[in-house]
Amino acid sequence: MSEHGTILQLKKCVLLQDMNSDELDAVFRLTESEDFAAGEEILTEGLAYQSLWIIVTGRCEVVKSGNGLEPNRLAELEEGAVFGEMSFFEKAPHSASVRALSDVSTMRLTRRRFEDLRKNCPAAADKIACNLVNILSTRLRRMDEWTCQLVEGNCSERQQGEWQEFRAKLYSGLQF
Amino acid sequence: MSEHGTILQLKKCVLLQDMNSDELDAVFRLTESEDFAAGEEILTEGLAYQSLWIIVTGRCEVVKSGNGLEPNRLAELEEGAVFGEMSFFEKAPHSASVRALSDVSTMRLTRRRFEDLRKNCPAAADKIACNLVNILSTRLRRMDEWTCQLVEGNCSERQQGEWQEFRAKLYSGLQF
Repeated sequence: MSEHGTILQLKKCVLLQDMNSDELDAVFRLTESEDFAAGEEILTEGLAYQSLWIIVTGRCEVVKSGNGLEPNRLAELEEGAVFGEMSFFEKAPHSASVRALSDVSTMRLTRRRFEDLRKNCPAAADKIACNLVNILSTRLRRMDEWTCQLVEGNCSERQQGEWQEFRAKLYSGLQF
Repeated sequence: MSEHGTILQLKKCVLLQDMNSDELDAVFRLTESEDFAAGEEILTEGLAYQSLWIIVTGRCEVVKSGNGLEPNRLAELEEGAVFGEMSFFEKAPHSASVRALSDVSTMRLTRRRFEDLRKNCPAAADKIACNLVNILSTRLRRMDEWTCQLVEGNCSERQQGEWQEFRAKLYSGLQF
């Protein structure tokens, strides 16, 4: 794909929403292109990289090792998908691996480069962070609904109590 | 509490981490003080305000109506806790109400004021957004682990399949 075509594609990525062209330029100047051959592992479960990747072309799979069983495919990611976002701000081991299903071309923004972006163009850094908040709060709300339904419909009274206790801790954890 | 005491307290709030004094000043200039008497409802389930509240003094409870049953207390929030964060960027109905348990004094940052902050001091807006990403990704990771354990240990094969399908959709939803 031409560089111009790539930029047009990337503008549609959820992570880069609401940016003007100066902000997009500031982001693109700090990202690195990284290409992977089909089958290559891009991100390894258990390790803690702090980077955001956007898939520019190709497809990836998210796989989780199954305690000695066959690895379990969690999801398939297409062009424009983002990964690495769960451990970008807080250094935490990735809970799954990401592997290229076809030849894959990515744009990578490391945490260090994001810190440069915060200094050079805080408005662009702010928009990336707000887009991430949107993604994560939608995901959290949906997961919460799913689990509530499961627990209400299928679980023992003891488990219902445990779920309520867990949620109470989770949602009151925002403290001094 | 004196204004100076309040500012010292608020600096410890998770939402305002890593800010220098210029950034904190920019935030404080845009927040409004709001006080509530014990028993008053601050935020109502089902409505969609877009504001962040920080509890400066007092305690609140998070309650969810139980489909005609007794309201269910989900969590208790203390000084320094933040609420409203799940619907701040994306206008969505709140999944629970927040009620003052004692006389409560809060600082409120409306979404409109946050937009002013993005223009006047994007570095401060960026830090609030990054702190929110941290909070949400930690919460999401914990909820994911909790539900995985529940589903693996207690659910039928059909339900395990449904959970895998749901997660796959959830984590690959970041697309063009």
